[in-house]
Amino acid sequence: MKTSSLLLATTRETPADAVVISHQLMLRAGIIRPLAGGLYNWLPLGVRVLRKVEAIIREEMNKAQAQEVLMPVVQPMELWEESGRAEAYGPELLRFKDRHQRDFALGPTHEEIITDLVRKEIRSYKQLPANFYQIQTKFRDEIRPRFGVMRSREFIMKDAYSFHMDKDSLQDTYEEMYDTYNRIFTRLGLDFRPVQADTGSIGGEGSHEFHVLADSGEDDIAFSSDSDYAANIELAEALAPRGERAAATEELTKIETPNKHSIEDVCDFLQLKKKKVAKTLVVKGATEEHPVVALLIRGDHDLNEIKAEKLDLVAEPFEMASDEDIQNAVGCKAGSIGPVNLNIPVIVDRTAAHMADFVCGANEDGFHFTGANWDRDATQTLVADIRNVVKGDPSPCGKGKIEIRRGIEVGHIFQLGNKYSEALNATVLNENSRAQILEMGCYGIGVTRVVAAAIEQNYDDKGIIWPEAIAPFQVCIVPMQMHKSPRVEEAVMALYNELTAKGIEVLLDDRKERPGVMFNDMELIGIPHRIVIGERGLDKGEIEYKHRRDEKSQDIPEADFISFLMEKLSQK
Amino acid sequence: MKTSSLLLATTRETPADAVVISHQLMLRAGIIRPLAGGLYNWLPLGVRVLRKVEAIIREEMNKAQAQEVLMPVVQPMELWEESGRAEAYGPELLRFKDRHQRDFALGPTHEEIITDLVRKEIRSYKQLPANFYQIQTKFRDEIRPRFGVMRSREFIMKDAYSFHMDKDSLQDTYEEMYDTYNRIFTRLGLDFRPVQADTGSIGGEGSHEFHVLADSGEDDIAFSSDSDYAANIELAEALAPRGERAAATEELTKIETPNKHSIEDVCDFLQLKKKKVAKTLVVKGATEEHPVVALLIRGDHDLNEIKAEKLDLVAEPFEMASDEDIQNAVGCKAGSIGPVNLNIPVIVDRTAAHMADFVCGANEDGFHFTGANWDRDATQTLVADIRNVVKGDPSPCGKGKIEIRRGIEVGHIFQLGNKYSEALNATVLNENSRAQILEMGCYGIGVTRVVAAAIEQNYDDKGIIWPEAIAPFQVCIVPMQMHKSPRVEEAVMALYNELTAKGIEVLLDDRKERPGVMFNDMELIGIPHRIVIGERGLDKGEIEYKHRRDEKSQDIPEADFISFLMEKLSQK
Repeated sequence: MKTSSLLLATTRETPADAVVISHQLMLRAGIIRPLAGGLYNWLPLGVRVLRKVEAIIREEMNKAQAQEVLMPVVQPMELWEESGRAEAYGPELLRFKDRHQRDFALGPTHEEIITDLVRKEIRSYKQLPANFYQIQTKFRDEIRPRFGVMRSREFIMKDAYSFHMDKDSLQDTYEEMYDTYNRIFTRLGLDFRPVQADTGSIGGEGSHEFHVLADSGEDDIAFSSDSDYAANIELAEALAPRGERAAATEELTKIETPNKHSIEDVCDFLQLKKKKVAKTLVVKGATEEHPVVALLIRGDHDLNEIKAEKLDLVAEPFEMASDEDIQNAVGCKAGSIGPVNLNIPVIVDRTAAHMADFVCGANEDGFHFTGANWDRDATQTLVADIRNVVKGDPSPCGKGKIEIRRGIEVGHIFQLGNKYSEALNATVLNENSRAQILEMGCYGIGVTRVVAAAIEQNYDDKGIIWPEAIAPFQVCIVPMQMHKSPRVEEAVMALYNELTAKGIEVLLDDRKERPGVMFNDMELIGIPHRIVIGERGLDKGEIEYKHRRDEKSQDIPEADFISFLMEKLSQK
Repeated sequence: MKTSSLLLATTRETPADAVVISHQLMLRAGIIRPLAGGLYNWLPLGVRVLRKVEAIIREEMNKAQAQEVLMPVVQPMELWEESGRAEAYGPELLRFKDRHQRDFALGPTHEEIITDLVRKEIRSYKQLPANFYQIQTKFRDEIRPRFGVMRSREFIMKDAYSFHMDKDSLQDTYEEMYDTYNRIFTRLGLDFRPVQADTGSIGGEGSHEFHVLADSGEDDIAFSSDSDYAANIELAEALAPRGERAAATEELTKIETPNKHSIEDVCDFLQLKKKKVAKTLVVKGATEEHPVVALLIRGDHDLNEIKAEKLDLVAEPFEMASDEDIQNAVGCKAGSIGPVNLNIPVIVDRTAAHMADFVCGANEDGFHFTGANWDRDATQTLVADIRNVVKGDPSPCGKGKIEIRRGIEVGHIFQLGNKYSEALNATVLNENSRAQILEMGCYGIGVTRVVAAAIEQNYDDKGIIWPEAIAPFQVCIVPMQMHKSPRVEEAVMALYNELTAKGIEVLLDDRKERPGVMFNDMELIGIPHRIVIGERGLDKGEIEYKHRRDEKSQDIPEADFISFLMEKLSQK
């Protein structure tokens, strides 16, 4: 293709409201344009990338025996009522009435629709397992859409749903999808990690997220330095410290800490490191007997709400206790709570349970204890893992230490179990002709998000650096003064035609622009292989080549150029 | 693919609410399943067809230098307000509010969005002409969705929009799209006709519809017997009869016709042919001076409302006058009107203007005239073409006679002119650096509708007969007793693997079903080439072949089979 017949909508200015780099570059390179909050038009350059991502996903899903279907964007609310999600989903589900006043919604996901289809169409265990996928537009009415297509309202997903007679079969397909996702993201040319993820309130046997590693990622991923262990920080287990707890050496002493409520304030005031202080958080309890409970972690650690809410004593969903709740239950403000003589259950993090001679609130405004020690001064109701792992923690896999990196979630595979099949009574006759509730798995990839994530991972100060497999064009040709030199034009067109005939996607910049403008545009839009043809090179019988990642260009003898380029293209 | 890993959802029953054959067969063959009124799930077999249709359209659009974009399904109402269509569109535009109470709609078409994009992104005449297309989900809230995906609420369209500095450039792209559409529908394997279409109230220079010919079509297409003239009956011109009008031979006579209001009643009562009677219809007028006008056509002809509403005296949109209007203006009921002494304008069809000694209403309930003649008895305000052509009329192209066939509209190309560019002030600087309003064309194909239309044209009493280019599989293999005969299984698998390796899409029916069930299913889902392998054939060294359109199968020597099949596949 020639730039003269392409809407090349590059801009030099960085749009003010675009805070992440992928959003900035997608606007600057003319990949997308905003239509309204969280709604984007994909320009020709962007659609080329999108279609390549889709094609790779489709090929790999087909290879894994998944069957492509297409379900409507507009969904009847009846099915959401039946699954119980009409109530649970909240305002991100955009609901409306049609002209006959019937209730519909824009699908943010299709579990209800596919489960309804399967309960009607699949009659016998002989037809299972089956795995259905689609690549379809979704809508989620985000309250604050942001980061461009990374968190837009309308987006494209590949969503797949598998159905099984038993958990073993689900496990098999789950593993096949795990492998398929690894193949997909590898082919897309991304540096990614499958990480163990929380299965949430749904339960289920397993869940993995696929993260593209990038500093701008919203999620923290815990890795082992010495193994391939990787887990979302929500899930990564913090092991109990080894060995015995140190013995008490100090007396329990009540000291005045006027207006010192935060850990930082108390540490500054007492000239202590945070790890000497125990942080006590009061949260809503799960039982009438204990409407609030205390969670105790070391001062330098962060509470992991996901872990906490799985405990029987803690309310689900997780919620902090109100000031009023705390005042009523304990008789002081939140910043002065401690485990000594505390009249509510005390759940102690594994590491905090190993502290000795620690500082804590005295359950009295303006006072703390120093020299507090477990058993002697305070009672542990329960010891549990309720904190986030931090860099340097021993890896739960037993090998190496934890490292934390940031990731962008682009895929998620999930053993749903029978949540939807039970709610919608999706049964199939088993070998004994008995109706049996199906097991389900679901497998998503954020197709439009993959494009943004690829940029977050692959850019420099000049613009995007597309992975070869999803670049809008593989090669660009930048001619020098083509419009003035018939000789250059002839050489350019000969090469353009030869490469195009070989099935290579070439973008020829045939605009009457200055070389600098053309170079900048081609770098901004991130074409991997750049060819420059000009009088000076032709005089020497040379053509200039530069990969987008190369610092310098190379001059290649004309006669060798095609084989040189083909070699470069085959390296990927 | 094997049927054991395909959701083959065939049924023998014809669903009661499916009235057209494509809807019946799409349900019976497991192509689609209803989700709610006018909303359909596409099953795996259907998606395979859909993707092939899309791929052909995409390839041909790309070849024609059209650039693929993707615009959101959800559109902000502001742009519809700006174009003036918010008011004009009516309840088929499904509108709703998002969580911030902002107004949005589900896009039934994207003129506003693309015009907004172009006015922002295209600055100079050097970037034009440009033609942008997308293949995207659309929604039209039909009051009575019917005929399956032929008139569903959610559907897929390829819509394209071209932009130009002048009408000549628009005409060039229009012609290129005309050729492209011909290539697309030819490649799809459909018997179709491009037909001249009405440009409606938008005006514009040209408009063609592409119709798949099928008896079940909703549109009447007028063809010439001797040329390639084809036009929608809405548009086809009815020429004036040749020669002079016959002279009057009868006296004007008023006769009693008690309670005879319809043409049928009057003809029965008077023992006349319809062509002897003049039918007078009273419709709303366009001016205050003439709030109603009379339209007069021969009794055996039908009024063409599209032609009528283009006349200056006739209201637009076209509307019949009410009984009250007629009573007030003429003083009798609708069935007794005639042109003799009529006190409102009389617009006479060209053919009716040639009648002599005709029968007509006497403008008095219960009476008609016989022997009426123009000029002597009644005055013509205007003679115009206001009827539908009928079979046998001379073709307006000057060659041959009119034939009428029914068609299904699957594509439409249209010179929009500056309707949207003017409303949205889409201007571009011309060579003299002056802002100039753009010319626009639009080009649509109903992608999901093409699938239904292909079936309406290609079926028999056994099921669908897919055109080769869009068949879900090219070849099916039906083994006889494969599960009992290792020899059959070996031969089947060898052939399956060989064909699959050649890139041929083969469906192997590996179910443990009786041959009759397998044959019926393969015929119902319409796979073009059927191969049968069984013990009996292998004994003779033969493999059975039958094309879906063949009456009888052929036995082909095993050694020649592959080359025989490849030859069949290449014929298309």
